[in-house]
Amino acid sequence: MIIDCHGHYTTSPPAHEAWRRRQVAAGRGMSNPIPRISDDEIRETIINGQLRVQGERGVDMTIFSPRAAGMAHHEADEARNAVWSDLCNTLIHRVCRLFPRNFVGVCQLPQAPGVSPANCIGELERCVTAYGFVGCNLNPDPSGGYWTDPPLTDRWWYPLYEKMVELDVPAMIHVSSSCNPNFHATGAHYLNGDTTAFMQLLASDLFRDFPTLKFIIPHGGGAVPYHWGRYRGLAQDMGRPPLTELLLGNVFFDTCVYHQPGTELLARVIPTTNILFASETLGAVRGIDPETGHAYDDTRRYIDGVPWLTPADRAAIFEGNARRVYGRLSAQLERQLSW
Amino acid sequence: MIIDCHGHYTTSPPAHEAWRRRQVAAGRGMSNPIPRISDDEIRETIINGQLRVQGERGVDMTIFSPRAAGMAHHEADEARNAVWSDLCNTLIHRVCRLFPRNFVGVCQLPQAPGVSPANCIGELERCVTAYGFVGCNLNPDPSGGYWTDPPLTDRWWYPLYEKMVELDVPAMIHVSSSCNPNFHATGAHYLNGDTTAFMQLLASDLFRDFPTLKFIIPHGGGAVPYHWGRYRGLAQDMGRPPLTELLLGNVFFDTCVYHQPGTELLARVIPTTNILFASETLGAVRGIDPETGHAYDDTRRYIDGVPWLTPADRAAIFEGNARRVYGRLSAQLERQLSW
Repeated sequence: MIIDCHGHYTTSPPAHEAWRRRQVAAGRGMSNPIPRISDDEIRETIINGQLRVQGERGVDMTIFSPRAAGMAHHEADEARNAVWSDLCNTLIHRVCRLFPRNFVGVCQLPQAPGVSPANCIGELERCVTAYGFVGCNLNPDPSGGYWTDPPLTDRWWYPLYEKMVELDVPAMIHVSSSCNPNFHATGAHYLNGDTTAFMQLLASDLFRDFPTLKFIIPHGGGAVPYHWGRYRGLAQDMGRPPLTELLLGNVFFDTCVYHQPGTELLARVIPTTNILFASETLGAVRGIDPETGHAYDDTRRYIDGVPWLTPADRAAIFEGNARRVYGRLSAQLERQLSW
Repeated sequence: MIIDCHGHYTTSPPAHEAWRRRQVAAGRGMSNPIPRISDDEIRETIINGQLRVQGERGVDMTIFSPRAAGMAHHEADEARNAVWSDLCNTLIHRVCRLFPRNFVGVCQLPQAPGVSPANCIGELERCVTAYGFVGCNLNPDPSGGYWTDPPLTDRWWYPLYEKMVELDVPAMIHVSSSCNPNFHATGAHYLNGDTTAFMQLLASDLFRDFPTLKFIIPHGGGAVPYHWGRYRGLAQDMGRPPLTELLLGNVFFDTCVYHQPGTELLARVIPTTNILFASETLGAVRGIDPETGHAYDDTRRYIDGVPWLTPADRAAIFEGNARRVYGRLSAQLERQLSW
């Protein structure tokens, strides 16, 4: 089985995103009726979008969450972000209900800049227990590019981590869009978020406090594997344990790296146990690479093309690691067979 | 000849940094006498520091600038940063005078958050014409981690670029320390700055306005080479020309990547013409890698260890590219022979 651990509903029906635009424009106090979206509309966007790509690339199942750039926690306050998260997560749940063999849900959280992440506990619990979601996306910078909230290793975040551990769900650390003109979202802010989070984890004792807490760092870990020597050296200079011991029991990298040399680097420096297959389709890059004749984001080809991976390595990257990191995934897949 | 294009005076005499700390603590209006530092003190820090490392690693010459984290443009206002830049650059000039075969200068700029970079023109001109410096370090985020100034591609920066072009000096795009608790300086802010700047350049027509402007992106280009497919794909989706055409006539990467696999990735995806040897010694990482028994930042070994590089490739990376990108370097090296 091939599991893509990183897909967003980037093709959601237009009425969904239009509602959010109206909500943001209206400011506080809007009580707009929620958008009516039919099952057929959802079916159409999925069949012509993510499901088609899954079929073309031989991917069996995607761990699926709301559009990352659409979270935009900086665009509204806590109350409105809560309504928006609810809508987004419910839409993901409907996708999973309609295509239970192909999608398992991961939720957006109702974060807001300066607001305690404890406010996310209710929505996380609802999505896991009522919808059968297996994880959440955690935005390390709800300000959208000004980084005004505390680092992920601050006690500020602990109430949420306690609930994640209790529910046995990991978080993908994933920023949203950027309102800072310095940061292109998918070309800078996303990768910077990944790099920043990793270094925060390296410098902290978070996993001593939460030995079973698990994070997936997307986009191949930002700059981290490319600078693995730098990170090993920094940890050493800081008197920290070796990285394998310090955080590789808790931190995992996806394979959203859109060329063969980058994927080979990832597979060369990061232990196979810490790599989860992902493509982020349909996502940041949608074109065909003229050098290969294939889609840039057809990351399965790059994994297949790493010559030294054994069948056991591939099984771990494509399936086994996802089942281990998303502790509820296997049971949820079973459950969805009866949907 | 082996030229290291990225070295900072991280070992400067204690009186130098102590003066800055007093200046920052005193606030506006301090007219402290400048610190007295003898030639012998400078000799000692260099002989036991950078010169020793050059000798051990067979590096002939370092393009040398003030400590990057020490610039700290966010710690004071324009006037005090101007005095500080003057002191830092004069100290570099004294190093070059004392060791004219081993060091050529690059200057710090008296930037300050929210202040037009036009304020840097005088100091740049002074350092180039009076001191024989061959480039400058340009901080894309004088706020120290809050990114409140315009992107590097904004006209805000154009007066400085006009002077750089006129003087034929490139800039290394290099952030300074971070006052944002989210960003560890050398483990996140530095790499994020590199990644951010590259994406700004990719999305702009800056080099149509300044066809001869040249930037070096340090630390191996941040996350960029690892995500080269992503950047090629983003440019393509945005209807931009191929990256080679769009910016590789103007943008260069150094080799401050502290392990063999990362250096091989860099050499595999970035054209040899765009790679400049550098180590940033004595810099961010100072330990011995237990996997190799050599210093993490002994980057010459990694370049020497890339099996497919030809002698011509190595000559370009170690010397030729630096002489081309730093247009005044060859003449300055000649000039310093008579110092």
